[in-house]
Amino acid sequence: MIEASGGNLLQAKLSYGMIGGGPGSFIGDVHRKAAAFDGNCMLVAGCFSNSYENTLQTGQSLGISEARLSENVYMMAHAEAARPDGIKFVSITSPNYNHYDAAKAFLEHGIHVVCEKPLVFEIAQAEELIALAKAKDLLFCVMYSYSGSPMMREAREIVRSGKIGTVLTVVGEYAQGWLAQALEKSDQKQASWRTDPSIAGISNCIGDIGSHIEHTVSFITGLKIKRLCARLETIGLDRLLDTNASVLLEYENGASGNYWASQIAIGCDNRLVVRIYGTKGAIEWYQEDGNYLKVTYLDQPTQIFSRGNGYLSPAAANRIPSGHPEGYYEAFANVYNQFTLALNKKIAGQTLTAADLDFPDGDAGLDGVKFINACVESSKQDASWVHLGL
Amino acid sequence: MIEASGGNLLQAKLSYGMIGGGPGSFIGDVHRKAAAFDGNCMLVAGCFSNSYENTLQTGQSLGISEARLSENVYMMAHAEAARPDGIKFVSITSPNYNHYDAAKAFLEHGIHVVCEKPLVFEIAQAEELIALAKAKDLLFCVMYSYSGSPMMREAREIVRSGKIGTVLTVVGEYAQGWLAQALEKSDQKQASWRTDPSIAGISNCIGDIGSHIEHTVSFITGLKIKRLCARLETIGLDRLLDTNASVLLEYENGASGNYWASQIAIGCDNRLVVRIYGTKGAIEWYQEDGNYLKVTYLDQPTQIFSRGNGYLSPAAANRIPSGHPEGYYEAFANVYNQFTLALNKKIAGQTLTAADLDFPDGDAGLDGVKFINACVESSKQDASWVHLGL
Amino acid sequence: MIEASGGNLLQAKLSYGMIGGGPGSFIGDVHRKAAAFDGNCMLVAGCFSNSYENTLQTGQSLGISEARLSENVYMMAHAEAARPDGIKFVSITSPNYNHYDAAKAFLEHGIHVVCEKPLVFEIAQAEELIALAKAKDLLFCVMYSYSGSPMMREAREIVRSGKIGTVLTVVGEYAQGWLAQALEKSDQKQASWRTDPSIAGISNCIGDIGSHIEHTVSFITGLKIKRLCARLETIGLDRLLDTNASVLLEYENGASGNYWASQIAIGCDNRLVVRIYGTKGAIEWYQEDGNYLKVTYLDQPTQIFSRGNGYLSPAAANRIPSGHPEGYYEAFANVYNQFTLALNKKIAGQTLTAADLDFPDGDAGLDGVKFINACVESSKQDASWVHLGL
Amino acid sequence: MIEASGGNLLQAKLSYGMIGGGPGSFIGDVHRKAAAFDGNCMLVAGCFSNSYENTLQTGQSLGISEARLSENVYMMAHAEAARPDGIKFVSITSPNYNHYDAAKAFLEHGIHVVCEKPLVFEIAQAEELIALAKAKDLLFCVMYSYSGSPMMREAREIVRSGKIGTVLTVVGEYAQGWLAQALEKSDQKQASWRTDPSIAGISNCIGDIGSHIEHTVSFITGLKIKRLCARLETIGLDRLLDTNASVLLEYENGASGNYWASQIAIGCDNRLVVRIYGTKGAIEWYQEDGNYLKVTYLDQPTQIFSRGNGYLSPAAANRIPSGHPEGYYEAFANVYNQFTLALNKKIAGQTLTAADLDFPDGDAGLDGVKFINACVESSKQDASWVHLGL
Repeated sequence: MIEASGGNLLQAKLSYGMIGGGPGSFIGDVHRKAAAFDGNCMLVAGCFSNSYENTLQTGQSLGISEARLSENVYMMAHAEAARPDGIKFVSITSPNYNHYDAAKAFLEHGIHVVCEKPLVFEIAQAEELIALAKAKDLLFCVMYSYSGSPMMREAREIVRSGKIGTVLTVVGEYAQGWLAQALEKSDQKQASWRTDPSIAGISNCIGDIGSHIEHTVSFITGLKIKRLCARLETIGLDRLLDTNASVLLEYENGASGNYWASQIAIGCDNRLVVRIYGTKGAIEWYQEDGNYLKVTYLDQPTQIFSRGNGYLSPAAANRIPSGHPEGYYEAFANVYNQFTLALNKKIAGQTLTAADLDFPDGDAGLDGVKFINACVESSKQDASWVHLGL
Repeated sequence: MIEASGGNLLQAKLSYGMIGGGPGSFIGDVHRKAAAFDGNCMLVAGCFSNSYENTLQTGQSLGISEARLSENVYMMAHAEAARPDGIKFVSITSPNYNHYDAAKAFLEHGIHVVCEKPLVFEIAQAEELIALAKAKDLLFCVMYSYSGSPMMREAREIVRSGKIGTVLTVVGEYAQGWLAQALEKSDQKQASWRTDPSIAGISNCIGDIGSHIEHTVSFITGLKIKRLCARLETIGLDRLLDTNASVLLEYENGASGNYWASQIAIGCDNRLVVRIYGTKGAIEWYQEDGNYLKVTYLDQPTQIFSRGNGYLSPAAANRIPSGHPEGYYEAFANVYNQFTLALNKKIAGQTLTAADLDFPDGDAGLDGVKFINACVESSKQDASWVHLGL
Repeated sequence: MIEASGGNLLQAKLSYGMIGGGPGSFIGDVHRKAAAFDGNCMLVAGCFSNSYENTLQTGQSLGISEARLSENVYMMAHAEAARPDGIKFVSITSPNYNHYDAAKAFLEHGIHVVCEKPLVFEIAQAEELIALAKAKDLLFCVMYSYSGSPMMREAREIVRSGKIGTVLTVVGEYAQGWLAQALEKSDQKQASWRTDPSIAGISNCIGDIGSHIEHTVSFITGLKIKRLCARLETIGLDRLLDTNASVLLEYENGASGNYWASQIAIGCDNRLVVRIYGTKGAIEWYQEDGNYLKVTYLDQPTQIFSRGNGYLSPAAANRIPSGHPEGYYEAFANVYNQFTLALNKKIAGQTLTAADLDFPDGDAGLDGVKFINACVESSKQDASWVHLGL
Repeated sequence: MIEASGGNLLQAKLSYGMIGGGPGSFIGDVHRKAAAFDGNCMLVAGCFSNSYENTLQTGQSLGISEARLSENVYMMAHAEAARPDGIKFVSITSPNYNHYDAAKAFLEHGIHVVCEKPLVFEIAQAEELIALAKAKDLLFCVMYSYSGSPMMREAREIVRSGKIGTVLTVVGEYAQGWLAQALEKSDQKQASWRTDPSIAGISNCIGDIGSHIEHTVSFITGLKIKRLCARLETIGLDRLLDTNASVLLEYENGASGNYWASQIAIGCDNRLVVRIYGTKGAIEWYQEDGNYLKVTYLDQPTQIFSRGNGYLSPAAANRIPSGHPEGYYEAFANVYNQFTLALNKKIAGQTLTAADLDFPDGDAGLDGVKFINACVESSKQDASWVHLGL
């Protein structure tokens, strides 16, 4: 039987499983709420923690049958692939170090994948997963959630349609202040794993939030990074990974960019700001005030585009009227909605168009890995220029 | 079996039914998503429209069994009350004229009620429903959704704890611009019913959005209105109900207030602003930027409280970190979460505390009805002073 | 010889005198700096205080010859009128109670007048001064300084040209918090005289700052007030005059308005906000952020007009490039510049056009007096409707 | 005789002369108004243009005696030094290429100097001027006008007193959009000279506005730049000098910095933003909204300091009450006031304290020259690290 909830016109909900999202996790619950938002999905299986006991506890609290709770990703991938009613896709929400193994396991078993960013540590790993998904004809979504914001869509529409002319320079920042304190010395799980190289990988700040700048700019502009010089710093407190990062970039079209990411900027919450300056106009988007987009054309007043208004392009999704803020969950939900609608069509044997596939994919994930690796490499060389992908 | 989704630690989801929320409705889907948000509820029955055909269509799209779809509220209340697995509560999301009949029907059949605001047209109706709920020992929630915003909770905590001293004056506004055009002449359903006295009742603007000011101020301050003078206007376009309203108020403690509500204020989306000025400090809350609260104490700089930060009181609910905006849906979801957790306790036979019952109730609905009626009465008398409840 | 300073193309500076502006005054020094700003004027005479000793002290500090310092306004008007090199105009910057006597004395002696607002206490007094200025063919400027703001000029241009259609409703506020404390009990001169009816007149709050709302709206829209109901309150502290005021207005064209003025609104500095909503658009101007003007046309994004940009109308004066803020002094200086350029033309025997005379005049002052009197009268009658000018 | 105007308690006005400020200039008139603002100065001599005809015209319009108008800086310095009533100081407001010659000429003749920034082209030139001023015991002010903003003073007080702990990282930007068009091809004088290396020197963007970031950060923090890597770009239009610049910096104390300056950022007016992040707090200052300062301490809400309020330190100068904006002219005027008060004391033979000398001086000018040269040098080397002063 089909349960009723948020509700689009679906004949059946897609069953899915989750990796990560156990006790103390943050992003797992966000994924669950976002996946449920439009009533397209049903969580029926999981490996929520490295500790099976924790997985059982979380699974029970979510009402999941113990038969669908697994000790590790391999066992879960195998078990679900073997069931006639096995999950249609998996959401990987565990910390970074686990992404590659998990994604590979499910792709190999023919199960579609949604994976948190940053995708993996190594470029080769990302390329392998992309190739695997392609070979198996599977959907592979990398959760750059801000791409689900309607005003990001509007920004992309404006820039890609040429309304601001040729992009000349880009300024991006993502500033947080939460790691100005040594939260990892208390039992704050988010701080603990992000500052631990064995879990977070080669980078903390540029990997966790710098990569959001990278994707946001790429999403809006389509610009490819040619080379960059980066300075990653661990400042204020003794840590093994970067907490502050500055990057100068050169894109393949000759445009320039500056990115700054920080986790020690007191007073900043999640201040992702992307500003794109072109020959004929400019746009500015502030994630924390993300229902609005500033657009300025040459010799004209700045215009404040407000989500939900009739003057916006169809590109800007529109759940509720303007002035009723949509936020973090809704952006995730928009990506899930896009992904699950595409997956439904795919399962129904329909041909997927580019519009159907308009969610961040493995290539976006690969770009992120290249970016992070180049930043780390450049920083090791005292902020020398490093070409992407090398 | 229990389906897994958003997920708190629940042993079983509460089944509920819905009135309204059929094709073309706006608020019904918001209620469905909000009720589903924390995984506490399951929609299993409905009378989504005056047209049974529409109800069937909506029900089918939501995967609801035809046996649980009803032609009218009376049949539905009767049927659900008769089932062993009948709904535990009903959400009334239909236009205003229907609230009284629907709420009464379900309360009479012993079913708990969540009802959209404004509650009903007449003070006597509101009092009757409150008495009925009390007599039947039923929970009765009136959906003033902004009360679910964490920063509203913080504002209430600050004001009620005396931090800003005695409240001296209050300024409230709710400005929209959408009815600056005759949308009701196209087939915009929201505009059509709100401008039609047979559906909306004695007021449009002061009833629909003015009542939000009234409740927000009441929620934060606890002030009771003693008397008011109001000017309701129908301006710009030929209509039968008000689209612009100005109110001077006197509260029982002697404080004064000014409210302004408009639906013809071009450039305004849903600009609900409440400002409370006391002897020792002041707070200001802007719904459209609702993750923040401005707090100023005498001779000190204005402080910007940002949702999700550690310096906030426990009163401010905290789903996600600061800087990741929560919005419209989350406010509704917070009210539903509060209501359903209370209902679960009640069903489990536990005693409900004031903290459990911290959602807008029938009394809040009654206050709204009194306010609207007094405004209409005062306006008929050329904005003379009218005492509340007379 | 002609001294060089700020410098427009003037052959000679206009000599002027000042009433008020002695020790402890605030606005006198603002007038002096503003009058000097464009190098058009030269202060050569004064009666800066009721105490001649204070006048001598201030005069000496300003380098004014003792022969030009007077004991009272009558002696000064007489003496200056008698000198071949007597002052060309006088600036009256003393507290309210002194305006009528001073303005009358100088007008009677054929000396042009700039007078602070509110002009006088009584309507008849204002009418008398206007008639006197007319009979004597003298320029008579009432210093509503905000009218000198370039973006106010732009606002007027937009509204008067019909770009926002017919004005439907107006919302104005002027909120301050400085009188939330009993500053008058210390030796704060500004607080002392403003809360003293013998000096400030029949009103404090509505007279001092409410009148700025009145003039700003009038300046931008040209709307005449037909009737109003007002509630003036003395709240928070024991005082003889109002510190908080709410007004509902009806303009002669049928448009409606709401004004709120307060001096006890903690957290507010000089928050003058004027919002004009028409059938085709709306404008909003925030004095504290006064280099910008928000303009919204139906179904279009809000535009942020920024002072100094090329897309503005010629109406917006333009001293310095956009993004370099002009503020309080510059607004005063713009009024003085307009007034003194007109006066120069007049002295040179040229005919003055309406454009030359584009500064607030006696009629603007009279409107203010009518407004204040009506507010006080209405408030005495428990906020009943009172027609203007009665 | 002493003329009366804006007026502090001065016995005599300082007479001064001006270089630059002829027809079509922008900054010359700003200097004149700022110097006149507090009534301390009197412009009596000038060489306003390379064209003597233009100098005569400007001089006449300003009422300056022809005897005090000179054909070039050498003749003027010589003539003024020879007069018993010669100017006490000179203000150099001409384009960059002229600064060195002019400053040298007046210093050599024993005349105090105020000079626009950037001071000169070469480090050696700056050092020579500083040494010359020292040898002659002359005051030497370099007009970094933003240092006159009260909230910059407050920022300096907060940072230098250690309230935000050790500075960890600094983010500065100065974004303009005016050169997104080829204004230099019309007869826009500001654009023409700034894009011409023979007049502007080795840099346009980093020299003109990047140097403001450099000084602002230095002024607030006292940090000295150790090394930097810079990318100067000429983008969008064919030009000889940079219009967009990105700089990574390392300060001597180990802190890091990022600066971005642009003249092609459409939608930006004069967006100078400086953000200082320390171990215990952070400050942010936006020049365009410069009456406010954002201050955040660890685990506390962001506070909005508003100029003119009692909670500010004495460091924040306070002309007018909070909420009445001070702007561009007032910042210049504050520097002039500081400089002329010091000069008066010096002329009176009093000892000058550090507080007296609290205006940007030759050393500040030298730091700017070093910064600009290092940026240009680094950019030539593909943004390699370059140490300052080499």
